[in-house]
Amino acid sequence: MRIVLEGGQLSAAGLGLGAKRTFVMKCGGSTLEELPDSFYKDLAELQENGTQPVIVHGGGPAISDNLSKLGIDTHFVNGLRYTSEEVLDVVEMVLAGSINKKIVRRIGQSAGKAVGLSGVDGALIQAKPVTNSAEVGLVGEVTGVNAALIEGVVKLGFMPVIAPVGIDADGQRYNINADTAAGAVASVLGVQQMIVVTDVPGILKTVNGEKRVLQTVTVQEIEDMIQTGEIYGGMIPKVRAAIACISGKVNEVVIVDGSEPGVLRKVLAGETIGTKIVRM
Amino acid sequence: MRIVLEGGQLSAAGLGLGAKRTFVMKCGGSTLEELPDSFYKDLAELQENGTQPVIVHGGGPAISDNLSKLGIDTHFVNGLRYTSEEVLDVVEMVLAGSINKKIVRRIGQSAGKAVGLSGVDGALIQAKPVTNSAEVGLVGEVTGVNAALIEGVVKLGFMPVIAPVGIDADGQRYNINADTAAGAVASVLGVQQMIVVTDVPGILKTVNGEKRVLQTVTVQEIEDMIQTGEIYGGMIPKVRAAIACISGKVNEVVIVDGSEPGVLRKVLAGETIGTKIVRM
Amino acid sequence: MRIVLEGGQLSAAGLGLGAKRTFVMKCGGSTLEELPDSFYKDLAELQENGTQPVIVHGGGPAISDNLSKLGIDTHFVNGLRYTSEEVLDVVEMVLAGSINKKIVRRIGQSAGKAVGLSGVDGALIQAKPVTNSAEVGLVGEVTGVNAALIEGVVKLGFMPVIAPVGIDADGQRYNINADTAAGAVASVLGVQQMIVVTDVPGILKTVNGEKRVLQTVTVQEIEDMIQTGEIYGGMIPKVRAAIACISGKVNEVVIVDGSEPGVLRKVLAGETIGTKIVRM
Amino acid sequence: MRIVLEGGQLSAAGLGLGAKRTFVMKCGGSTLEELPDSFYKDLAELQENGTQPVIVHGGGPAISDNLSKLGIDTHFVNGLRYTSEEVLDVVEMVLAGSINKKIVRRIGQSAGKAVGLSGVDGALIQAKPVTNSAEVGLVGEVTGVNAALIEGVVKLGFMPVIAPVGIDADGQRYNINADTAAGAVASVLGVQQMIVVTDVPGILKTVNGEKRVLQTVTVQEIEDMIQTGEIYGGMIPKVRAAIACISGKVNEVVIVDGSEPGVLRKVLAGETIGTKIVRM
Amino acid sequence: MRIVLEGGQLSAAGLGLGAKRTFVMKCGGSTLEELPDSFYKDLAELQENGTQPVIVHGGGPAISDNLSKLGIDTHFVNGLRYTSEEVLDVVEMVLAGSINKKIVRRIGQSAGKAVGLSGVDGALIQAKPVTNSAEVGLVGEVTGVNAALIEGVVKLGFMPVIAPVGIDADGQRYNINADTAAGAVASVLGVQQMIVVTDVPGILKTVNGEKRVLQTVTVQEIEDMIQTGEIYGGMIPKVRAAIACISGKVNEVVIVDGSEPGVLRKVLAGETIGTKIVRM
Amino acid sequence: MRIVLEGGQLSAAGLGLGAKRTFVMKCGGSTLEELPDSFYKDLAELQENGTQPVIVHGGGPAISDNLSKLGIDTHFVNGLRYTSEEVLDVVEMVLAGSINKKIVRRIGQSAGKAVGLSGVDGALIQAKPVTNSAEVGLVGEVTGVNAALIEGVVKLGFMPVIAPVGIDADGQRYNINADTAAGAVASVLGVQQMIVVTDVPGILKTVNGEKRVLQTVTVQEIEDMIQTGEIYGGMIPKVRAAIACISGKVNEVVIVDGSEPGVLRKVLAGETIGTKIVRM
Repeated sequence: MRIVLEGGQLSAAGLGLGAKRTFVMKCGGSTLEELPDSFYKDLAELQENGTQPVIVHGGGPAISDNLSKLGIDTHFVNGLRYTSEEVLDVVEMVLAGSINKKIVRRIGQSAGKAVGLSGVDGALIQAKPVTNSAEVGLVGEVTGVNAALIEGVVKLGFMPVIAPVGIDADGQRYNINADTAAGAVASVLGVQQMIVVTDVPGILKTVNGEKRVLQTVTVQEIEDMIQTGEIYGGMIPKVRAAIACISGKVNEVVIVDGSEPGVLRKVLAGETIGTKIVRM
Repeated sequence: MRIVLEGGQLSAAGLGLGAKRTFVMKCGGSTLEELPDSFYKDLAELQENGTQPVIVHGGGPAISDNLSKLGIDTHFVNGLRYTSEEVLDVVEMVLAGSINKKIVRRIGQSAGKAVGLSGVDGALIQAKPVTNSAEVGLVGEVTGVNAALIEGVVKLGFMPVIAPVGIDADGQRYNINADTAAGAVASVLGVQQMIVVTDVPGILKTVNGEKRVLQTVTVQEIEDMIQTGEIYGGMIPKVRAAIACISGKVNEVVIVDGSEPGVLRKVLAGETIGTKIVRM
Repeated sequence: MRIVLEGGQLSAAGLGLGAKRTFVMKCGGSTLEELPDSFYKDLAELQENGTQPVIVHGGGPAISDNLSKLGIDTHFVNGLRYTSEEVLDVVEMVLAGSINKKIVRRIGQSAGKAVGLSGVDGALIQAKPVTNSAEVGLVGEVTGVNAALIEGVVKLGFMPVIAPVGIDADGQRYNINADTAAGAVASVLGVQQMIVVTDVPGILKTVNGEKRVLQTVTVQEIEDMIQTGEIYGGMIPKVRAAIACISGKVNEVVIVDGSEPGVLRKVLAGETIGTKIVRM
Repeated sequence: MRIVLEGGQLSAAGLGLGAKRTFVMKCGGSTLEELPDSFYKDLAELQENGTQPVIVHGGGPAISDNLSKLGIDTHFVNGLRYTSEEVLDVVEMVLAGSINKKIVRRIGQSAGKAVGLSGVDGALIQAKPVTNSAEVGLVGEVTGVNAALIEGVVKLGFMPVIAPVGIDADGQRYNINADTAAGAVASVLGVQQMIVVTDVPGILKTVNGEKRVLQTVTVQEIEDMIQTGEIYGGMIPKVRAAIACISGKVNEVVIVDGSEPGVLRKVLAGETIGTKIVRM
Repeated sequence: MRIVLEGGQLSAAGLGLGAKRTFVMKCGGSTLEELPDSFYKDLAELQENGTQPVIVHGGGPAISDNLSKLGIDTHFVNGLRYTSEEVLDVVEMVLAGSINKKIVRRIGQSAGKAVGLSGVDGALIQAKPVTNSAEVGLVGEVTGVNAALIEGVVKLGFMPVIAPVGIDADGQRYNINADTAAGAVASVLGVQQMIVVTDVPGILKTVNGEKRVLQTVTVQEIEDMIQTGEIYGGMIPKVRAAIACISGKVNEVVIVDGSEPGVLRKVLAGETIGTKIVRM
Repeated sequence: MRIVLEGGQLSAAGLGLGAKRTFVMKCGGSTLEELPDSFYKDLAELQENGTQPVIVHGGGPAISDNLSKLGIDTHFVNGLRYTSEEVLDVVEMVLAGSINKKIVRRIGQSAGKAVGLSGVDGALIQAKPVTNSAEVGLVGEVTGVNAALIEGVVKLGFMPVIAPVGIDADGQRYNINADTAAGAVASVLGVQQMIVVTDVPGILKTVNGEKRVLQTVTVQEIEDMIQTGEIYGGMIPKVRAAIACISGKVNEVVIVDGSEPGVLRKVLAGETIGTKIVRM
């Protein structure tokens, strides 16, 4: 729990949150929907006991599904979907109106209290076009986070659940990568350690002929393991997403399996669970 | 302006909003989208000057349009669309993810500060099934409003923009009529006079062979005018929607044409504009 | 009624319609569908009593709705939908096969007798490409109207209900603006005054602090009122549509609210109702 | 040609058509679209020379195609699609707004003059529910034909092109079989011989080891040939459709291949072409 | 029957099929589905008696239908649909997964034994881009046929049912014309006479004022009959498809009507049925 | 490799495959598509060296995706999609025409030789309705496998790639669970050990505070671990699917991660990789 105290604890001075302790959790949209009730009960219990989660969620297949059902033609550039205004309409509608609200309701059903916000609300996530916007369209990188709104919502007694849509000073929306959004939110809140909820137990390494879950690993070691093939397949985007959260004040992320019973309590209590990725 | 002061002003004691004065405005989803920029500039100016709008919006054709594009089969009972879970998925997604966020962005583009909320967020709109739910499905009536959340958001410096989805203690969502939602919100906030923004200048009456906009009318007089045919056609649902906002502490609604220049400032300044409907 | 007699009456010599008196009425597609039964009963009664309506209707949201449901991709140029052959297939199908026939049936249900025609039938509306066809696609302007077919149908005892699709000598179809189509039909029939059926009671003007419906107004006065902001918002396209009907022999249009009880009888009887727009 | 003169010629007394000679032609919707230009040129030439065609067309795959694209759920009863109001909306829209107008335009492009009518226009095809309407829905049988409207249109100089939608006194629409509609139209017009345009050269019979096109055959002989298997496969519905046209005054139909050069002129000139089916 | 024996019989030496005699039959996808049960019973009986059919089928409207339902945008070049990868996904899915399997099941239901194969399986149909692939996209011409796979399946006791998708050495798929695929398969199998199953009884010619089915005709005579108009309309693509099968060792095709009772047995028994087209 | 020799080796006597050694591999449809090229290269190399894979694949999200895009209404019974004929049309089309052929092509691109088969081809998978077919519709259980066809295809030199659609003696299709299909195929081929390819490295167990991949586990131990929560979340369906393959002669399955480099070669060489589940 020492690490969590260092990384997750937010001082009353810095955030004006009094005795409240905040942690930032990032999760893919589809993962959050599939998490067991026990996960949501843990969230509510943490909130009840004064540890306040801030959740940044991703999109998941519901966006592709709705684009397809709505007959929105999309084109891909180097494997990335070009984000036109029409695509962004659906991205925002699904992220902020569907996934975000499902999470808020599941938290409510577990007796937690949550308020869903889009990055557009109160200019929570301020953004500018990415440098290759000619290729990818309305994708943005984060230029600022309205910490006061997040903290205000926390002080009102609600977990903020944040959909990663960004906005600039002209009111132009942007599609924001959920990982970098989560990292930016955590950094602005002064959080050093973030939790990345996935569907894998952590990063595996073969030791003495047995595959074991690594307890701690550096970013550089991960890159090496990708090079040697020890990390392969679908695990690569998962660890890269976790690494993308490391920025600004955030220098540790813990990858955990959200469906593992009691996982949040364990990680916040400092138990060895999942794999901790440290900046270096 | 006297009435507005009485109706709209919220005491620091009652709401803990300090010197802030709040008014509640209801508007159809399609109307809000078509309002001119000047309307949103007026909203922002009011906020800047310490009069805080609380907006409850409706749905509009975007819901039907998305239901149709998504190929959701719906059936109608006595002219009302039966709200199944599948229909409600789309209602919520469009209300909370699309219309709500468009309004938030338009306010932001006019230098106002807004936060969009669904009735699900923080259990803002608590609901139970309507008595004829067997016929109409998941349609709810309001049982409570989380005034503390609305006031909290206002105190944080943001206009709440509220999508009328309700929720009960079990986390079941309901489709809520925007008019009764607005009336309930206003009543809980202690507001006596609400503004209903439409696309008509008010209620017309023929006087001396000329059609003129009525300045004040009672609910009963409206019912009489519907009976005699003086109010007819598409005007009937508009005045009925306005009347539906009258409940609890709300005993006056002013119907105004949102595209009329300066309309909000005028009505809040007590100018004669639109038609005021009084309970009796 | 004097004006109507001069404008609406068609001489037996000019039109070969014997004692029949004809008037031309233009109405948006969605408006016509929403008109009350009483409107259609009035139409039938007028026909029964020897006053023969000629109806030109527009499209309304059914076209957009079908384009969307059929998954026709469309693009917009300066806010106007580009009319490709594929779009025109749907425009024609909905205008001539759906809206047109609904109107014919509603007239029949009120004991009137109507025959629906498209501008393609008997080359009723002859057209050529508009000058900016490169931008807008297959949109046409009217080059001729087959008055003999309209008069022939009237003499057979039926109200013509006309869908504004045009055709040129090569059999190429065009999308025609319903207002200019109506104006051209009326002009060719020698009608000086047309009726434009809308959902508003006329043009409002503030007189002595009260909003009143104007009884007569010139085109120039309307332009002035748009400049000064007295006409604003959704009223602007409605008056512009009415003005677009003024051309050739047509120099007056009366804007009326089609849902007002007895409106057609009143306007044909010369009663002061709605707003009359005169060329100058 | 003798038979045609007897069957097709309409006396001035009976029909008020002066010297005009009329014939009735039935054709499937898909067949008509695929007919060569020469067929339409022949139609125009006949009209020019005083022989006036009356065309009743069917639907074809465009109806199924649009039902499918519009996502209308349909169910089938004994292989027949149940005609709900929703299905009928599409049937009418496609028949009267798409297929009908394509035929009118193709005639126009060949210098013919045509006016498209639906059975709803002027109550042209009056109908009542079929006896098994509980099974098949809004399918109608013909109770009357407005011959005056057809003759009126012919006298105005246009070929009527008729879409088989029926209507009853209450304004209820019905889906009408194109064959029985054509037979009813022809019978009311006093026509004894109808032309059924198909994509087959007639009915084949093996004579002396060679397959030959039959020149004349009775309804009974056809039934026998179906029993013995001499008529088989897709030919069965084609001859049954032709037989369905025989009713009232119509006691002969000639099945011809519409794509055969000069076929209409030949059959009207009494040449041996196609197969003539006689009542007995 | 002499020709068939020469053409259709495959020597044990050449094909290693022992006493088995093979014939190749080509049929459009929609035709095959509409064939009567008796046709499939005949196929099974032939197989039972040692005459082994090899079937190459086409696509039919199911491909267009699925493209439309799936909302795949397609464009046409000179009347031909451009085959993009996305279009080819649907073509392959429908040909190999839907039509092919329906045929296999219908054969099974008639106690025949069939195995469906796509040209991709075992690189059965090897292809390269057509010369005008810039215009038509992923359309291929046959460069080789894996005869060993076809013969192997026949030796295992199954009729091969082949969907005409081709593949090159890089694993690139191509859309292949069913006629040329059938011709290539037959030629590689050393078959001189192929059967083309259609819905017409053969090619008609007027002899002594009567239309009769031609028994034998050369390719050149067909071209002459198309020039003179004796073959016209929808018959032209049918005879051209049959001619397209003539290539390599195949120098005769017999066009037959698949719904004619006993047609396969008759043609294999050398009876005069349908029209035989000979190379010259 | 010892285990494999015992389990996977097929005697020439039993299967008539000469020196060929066969193994059966089951894989989900989405997993197979995401496997790296190296996996397919390994398959091809194994085939080249005389070890012949037999692959049974599942469906994956492409089925749901196509059902949704095609607008097929489905209903769920206890979380299972009811398989109507309409649903089965899509299931078969996607399984046999899309996923199956993609796998065949990927094998071909790696220089392997494969032939795709559906359970319908040659009645490869014979089935009867499951006992709860009233609830789940056209879902089948396997009653027989045509081993001769599989062996025949292997002897011709191709890997069979099998889509799990079943068929009964009446030609009725059934949706078959891919796991039980794979188990039945393996059992009929006399294979004792099957390989289940997944996206997880095996079953994890915490040993001395570290999570490690179990090397061997019994079915009973798995049930115990599910009870105790040691196996949880998305891992539960994966192990249950693997267990479902154990039936008949198959008494071991090895769960491996298909994206792990060299995984197939390793498991066939008897290396410790993944988790082996033994019947007891």
